[in-house]
Amino acid sequence: MSRPRVVIAGAGFGGLTCARALKKAPVDVLLVDRNNYHLFTPLLYQVASAVLDPGEIARPVRQLIRPLRNADFLMARITGADLQQRQLFTDHGPLAYDYLVLASGSQSDYFGNASLAQHAFGLKELDEGLAVRNRILMRFEEARWTDDRERRRTLLTFAVVGGGPTGVEMAGALSELIHLVLSKDYRDLDLGLVRVVLLEAAGSLLGTFVEPLRDAARRSLEKKGVEVLLKAKVADVTANSILLADGHEIPASTVIWTAGVRASDLGSLMSLPLARQARVQVLPTLQVAGHPEAFVIGDLAGAIDESGGGAPLPMLIPVAMQEGKHVAATIRDVLRGYGATNFLYKDPGIMATIGRNSAVAQLGPVRLKGFLGWLMWLTVHLINVVSFRSRVVVLVNWAWDYLFYDRPIRLIVRAADDRPD
Amino acid sequence: MSRPRVVIAGAGFGGLTCARALKKAPVDVLLVDRNNYHLFTPLLYQVASAVLDPGEIARPVRQLIRPLRNADFLMARITGADLQQRQLFTDHGPLAYDYLVLASGSQSDYFGNASLAQHAFGLKELDEGLAVRNRILMRFEEARWTDDRERRRTLLTFAVVGGGPTGVEMAGALSELIHLVLSKDYRDLDLGLVRVVLLEAAGSLLGTFVEPLRDAARRSLEKKGVEVLLKAKVADVTANSILLADGHEIPASTVIWTAGVRASDLGSLMSLPLARQARVQVLPTLQVAGHPEAFVIGDLAGAIDESGGGAPLPMLIPVAMQEGKHVAATIRDVLRGYGATNFLYKDPGIMATIGRNSAVAQLGPVRLKGFLGWLMWLTVHLINVVSFRSRVVVLVNWAWDYLFYDRPIRLIVRAADDRPD
Repeated sequence: MSRPRVVIAGAGFGGLTCARALKKAPVDVLLVDRNNYHLFTPLLYQVASAVLDPGEIARPVRQLIRPLRNADFLMARITGADLQQRQLFTDHGPLAYDYLVLASGSQSDYFGNASLAQHAFGLKELDEGLAVRNRILMRFEEARWTDDRERRRTLLTFAVVGGGPTGVEMAGALSELIHLVLSKDYRDLDLGLVRVVLLEAAGSLLGTFVEPLRDAARRSLEKKGVEVLLKAKVADVTANSILLADGHEIPASTVIWTAGVRASDLGSLMSLPLARQARVQVLPTLQVAGHPEAFVIGDLAGAIDESGGGAPLPMLIPVAMQEGKHVAATIRDVLRGYGATNFLYKDPGIMATIGRNSAVAQLGPVRLKGFLGWLMWLTVHLINVVSFRSRVVVLVNWAWDYLFYDRPIRLIVRAADDRPD
Repeated sequence: MSRPRVVIAGAGFGGLTCARALKKAPVDVLLVDRNNYHLFTPLLYQVASAVLDPGEIARPVRQLIRPLRNADFLMARITGADLQQRQLFTDHGPLAYDYLVLASGSQSDYFGNASLAQHAFGLKELDEGLAVRNRILMRFEEARWTDDRERRRTLLTFAVVGGGPTGVEMAGALSELIHLVLSKDYRDLDLGLVRVVLLEAAGSLLGTFVEPLRDAARRSLEKKGVEVLLKAKVADVTANSILLADGHEIPASTVIWTAGVRASDLGSLMSLPLARQARVQVLPTLQVAGHPEAFVIGDLAGAIDESGGGAPLPMLIPVAMQEGKHVAATIRDVLRGYGATNFLYKDPGIMATIGRNSAVAQLGPVRLKGFLGWLMWLTVHLINVVSFRSRVVVLVNWAWDYLFYDRPIRLIVRAADDRPD
């Protein structure tokens, strides 16, 4: 008799954790993802700011599931699902399942603004991190050989939109790349022209942190040379400028967008009832109503924080991982004849780094900032980088960056077409 | 009074060495290259075979010339030159010079065979290395989910054309990637279907090595699972097969071309008299006849081996570096009122590796093979990798690969478009 088949759509933190937690369950697991790798997204901004190479923050899914004798992987784009027929649709054909775990994550949300979608860079995917890096380095090369001073200023103005952790980390790392590293490469360029502008529509950065940490982050960013503009809502972007809602215009030829995120299209493709940010409405058990064999986890799931007064759970890695584990446990329970239980989130805390020697961390009653916060951030991220080898290589790169104010990976590289036929 | 301006076209081994050797000369140096990095080409096949990431074999030119206070860099494509007007043409406008050093290197030569140019991968540029890696990994993913056995065999057949050092190294590394690493990723795939075929038109591999080393290399490759086909001349390539001149056909959907190299197009763009392989004819001083202020070095230069009976010098890194040094010395001499002297090549020897524990090296009277040759190869390459940091990271990767039979960089990554406007 063949074993029940669990199909997991997405090999991010939620999907991968779920597959791992099913290691000893009497099921066959199939992980599906459009990329052949699992991405350690918290360090993506370090690829964008020329600290790390892709090999250090991504790991082949097949390597990660090697220890799981009951798991396999399919590299395919997910196009929908039929919950009645129990089939997941992919560009590689339909996949029948007994249990389905939807874990396809989230994407940049430009709120329907076509100018943003055209001119701004997202920072969610590995290829976007590489594109941002290429763009920043290209702009410096162009600026070096541009005689028009105004044009040079536009080329050297980098706008990061969104004052959440990703925006704060990107702006800090970018300002350090420019002032500590590129300044030595471009001795003849007037770096007084450089602007790194962080735009946030709300009245403060890092809205999910407590007030004192928000202020500390802002002061730290400003000390590193980042211009922080609060209550700055982006209305329109062209190739060479940003127009704010209040009419103010900033000449800038590079815009990085971290201000909006919504769930992947899978929920709407399947015509499921959606919550805010296009997340799929789920029961407290993370099941889809009426389909006890179908689960949604991670950024895609619009789960409610049962212990937090009914607010939706944030799109965070710990949420996705805990949900993945919970669903795996539920599937094992159901196979043994038990019922599904409600998911309860345990908040491990949040943190964001602003660059060398500075970070903010909020871990329950503990609040850290400055150098102590930074040590905490380093430790947590180094422990969580996905393999021992990565840890060694990432440590070498961080130490190099820290000691020598140098980022040797500032290469403008695009892969040649690998599908010439 | 402004100092004489030396424009160096190309930041490869020849151009970079020349710029460095001009460090204390009373000149201003401008290095021009279409990439912003210098590439350590001897390890490019390791990017293609998922051992190393680009950051480990490439270095920003601006970083390398930082210690040279008299040098600057322009990222631009070189389109020609006017030796009468003393101008180098680029897609960034013309550059006036007092001394010109042409060092634009070489490119893959498909000998006018359009099917090769369309379907085969070259292995000369960093982006090609990444493309080959992406292709190999994609073919395994496709094969895993293909039911048709014949199609699977075609997908899993990888042909490397050209039995010189690059072809030998690529075939060996590819076979090890498959048999030592990917075999663990694809437990359900019949690896008996895999073929790594090395095709060489001549009667032996590594024609520039002595007979016993050629045979050793061939035996070593065969032990690693590479099929070596000698006297195999490629007539035509399609998306799914290779047709040999003798009518034999090999179903294969990945073809890597290392069998032909010719100089960059700069010589013909400038209508200079050409030698074999489109190399520019030069005087024994490496000057262009009639233009004592214009020099040609490296693969582009058709220099004659004065000590070797009038044969053309091979396209090798030591030749390019020694020529770069010689031209820098000549420029310094000329500025002091002396004449140009003839270039004499000192042969340091040649080597090629066949994978773990095996390499051949021919250093004057010393001939090494097997494990000893491999230790020599490792040492020489590790010393010559371009920076201390790279040395550390490369060593970590090599040790990882060697000890754990694992290559964590097997990621299918393409940079997103960084020029969205």
